[in-house]
Amino acid sequence: MQRLPVMSERRWNPVLGEWVITATHRQDRTFLPPADYCPLDPTRPGGHPTEIDRADFEIVVFENRFPSLRRDPPEPAVAGTELSPVERASGVCEVVVYTPEHEATLTSESLEHIRRLIAVWAHRTVVLGARPEVDYVFVFENKGEAIGVTLHHPHGQIYAYPTIPPVLEREVANARSHVRRTGRCLWCDLQEQELADGRRIVAETESWVAGVPFAARWPYEVHLLPRRHVGWLHELTAPEVDDLALTLKTVLLKYDALFGFSLPYIMAIHQRPTDGGNHESYHLHIEFLPPNRTESKLKYLAGSETAAGAFINDTLPEETAPRLRELEPRTTAEVPS
Amino acid sequence: MQRLPVMSERRWNPVLGEWVITATHRQDRTFLPPADYCPLDPTRPGGHPTEIDRADFEIVVFENRFPSLRRDPPEPAVAGTELSPVERASGVCEVVVYTPEHEATLTSESLEHIRRLIAVWAHRTVVLGARPEVDYVFVFENKGEAIGVTLHHPHGQIYAYPTIPPVLEREVANARSHVRRTGRCLWCDLQEQELADGRRIVAETESWVAGVPFAARWPYEVHLLPRRHVGWLHELTAPEVDDLALTLKTVLLKYDALFGFSLPYIMAIHQRPTDGGNHESYHLHIEFLPPNRTESKLKYLAGSETAAGAFINDTLPEETAPRLRELEPRTTAEVPS
Repeated sequence: MQRLPVMSERRWNPVLGEWVITATHRQDRTFLPPADYCPLDPTRPGGHPTEIDRADFEIVVFENRFPSLRRDPPEPAVAGTELSPVERASGVCEVVVYTPEHEATLTSESLEHIRRLIAVWAHRTVVLGARPEVDYVFVFENKGEAIGVTLHHPHGQIYAYPTIPPVLEREVANARSHVRRTGRCLWCDLQEQELADGRRIVAETESWVAGVPFAARWPYEVHLLPRRHVGWLHELTAPEVDDLALTLKTVLLKYDALFGFSLPYIMAIHQRPTDGGNHESYHLHIEFLPPNRTESKLKYLAGSETAAGAFINDTLPEETAPRLRELEPRTTAEVPS
Repeated sequence: MQRLPVMSERRWNPVLGEWVITATHRQDRTFLPPADYCPLDPTRPGGHPTEIDRADFEIVVFENRFPSLRRDPPEPAVAGTELSPVERASGVCEVVVYTPEHEATLTSESLEHIRRLIAVWAHRTVVLGARPEVDYVFVFENKGEAIGVTLHHPHGQIYAYPTIPPVLEREVANARSHVRRTGRCLWCDLQEQELADGRRIVAETESWVAGVPFAARWPYEVHLLPRRHVGWLHELTAPEVDDLALTLKTVLLKYDALFGFSLPYIMAIHQRPTDGGNHESYHLHIEFLPPNRTESKLKYLAGSETAAGAFINDTLPEETAPRLRELEPRTTAEVPS
């Protein structure tokens, strides 16, 4: 595959107060290749060479061939100004291949394999977060063509950003001001409220709780929150990792049971920044944002959401949560190991 | 058509610091009806009755049958808490039907008709903005199935929100802090910089400038800005309205020439809030956000954009702007009146 000239930079938008990454070499990235040319398959003896030069693996992490952020980014293509500064797009973009099986999904993996994946996410967060230029390690997954995935093989991504991205920055600021005002963690308070109310809880284990948030933006949005106030995956105890694997698999099985097909979603792991600041107020959580509002209709982010930032949810969390709760597996004891 | 029970409320998300509108009666709204059952057609003699009970019209505005915000919203379905308050979803949602012709687009309309539409937008902004519960009047258009439109007939929408929506609030705050720091308008400064540089300009008239922003989020994003520092459409002089119509039609003709089909987009008119505050620092502008990154590929707002807020643009504004600039009409003199 031809490697195009590298152009990666960050441009400041003073109107919205945020950086935009401009990375032109990505336009020709691999786009929905036929299944027998999947670059995320193992390189099987006699088969076509893929990104992974071995015949088998459990989980593989490698650097994205079409990265938006680079360990050694080139000088920006344009000069910035005081009003519109330009910076090199430093950082790292990694691909996490969940399994050698092209047709698998996370729901078909064993709990042991999901624990292994959590360990990989935690490990990469520590390694990438230790880099001086990395202020935030964002572990996420885009799943399904509705989300715009260009490769079907089960995989996630990691973006190690040189600044805290806007959504996370807002969360960090609100968490901090909540602590200042109340002396308590914002998410611990929200979780206490949700557990007392009960209507929006989807699944519970001893150390993790999954539920539709009170002010959900997406109909079947689910957040997973550890009961203990921790900031990073690598701080989880072994029983907490076990419970996270169980909670993840429970939610994913319910999602797939919802409409009878493997539900598309964005999964986002929200950990503390790695910028060296004090982020004690921030509470680790995992968000699932599925775009379906019905079996056949998607929630589009159009004028109100994309251009004005005002989200409209066409469903009631008090109705979607029980719907998910009642789908199999009804208890985590029913989850196949 | 059956009218479902009304459920509209706003729920506060303390983590992101924003309101989410929850409106469940919208799930069954009209979805891509066959062309001969379009509810936005005139009601033709002997034809099926539509939303518009007359045989012809120029431009029609009426209240959305499936509104997210209501003049007289019901009491919220759930009780809020101190941490997660709930409010009634006050406001108004209107539909603006651009033309009686089902197959038309704005580009096929005369400049005179586009001026008429601008007058409608300005008038509705004044009328809705005068309502005490309305803090922001957002005039926008979702165009094309790629954006998620549920009706093809050329139309836009107006949302009169009870608070300033998050994106606009951020712009208002940044504009104000720029004035405080420099004594100047942020957009006037940006426009001066863009005109001096020239590379990202797409079209110019005496009183309006269209260009790809320096830190564009979408490949073919174009912003239209009046040269004079004004805040609302109704403040434009007659020659400025003429120029806006000309600039709008120029950009739309170029958009349709880009890939040879009527380009989908979100159009958003950014005016000053109507909350009674002093917003002298805010500068009227119109944003076009088309989702196409190539003829056949869309820019999806996935993990980095939707979940982290970090936009990645796969194109260079210094390449997309000249591409648009060189498409017909090359000058506004070539635009058919």
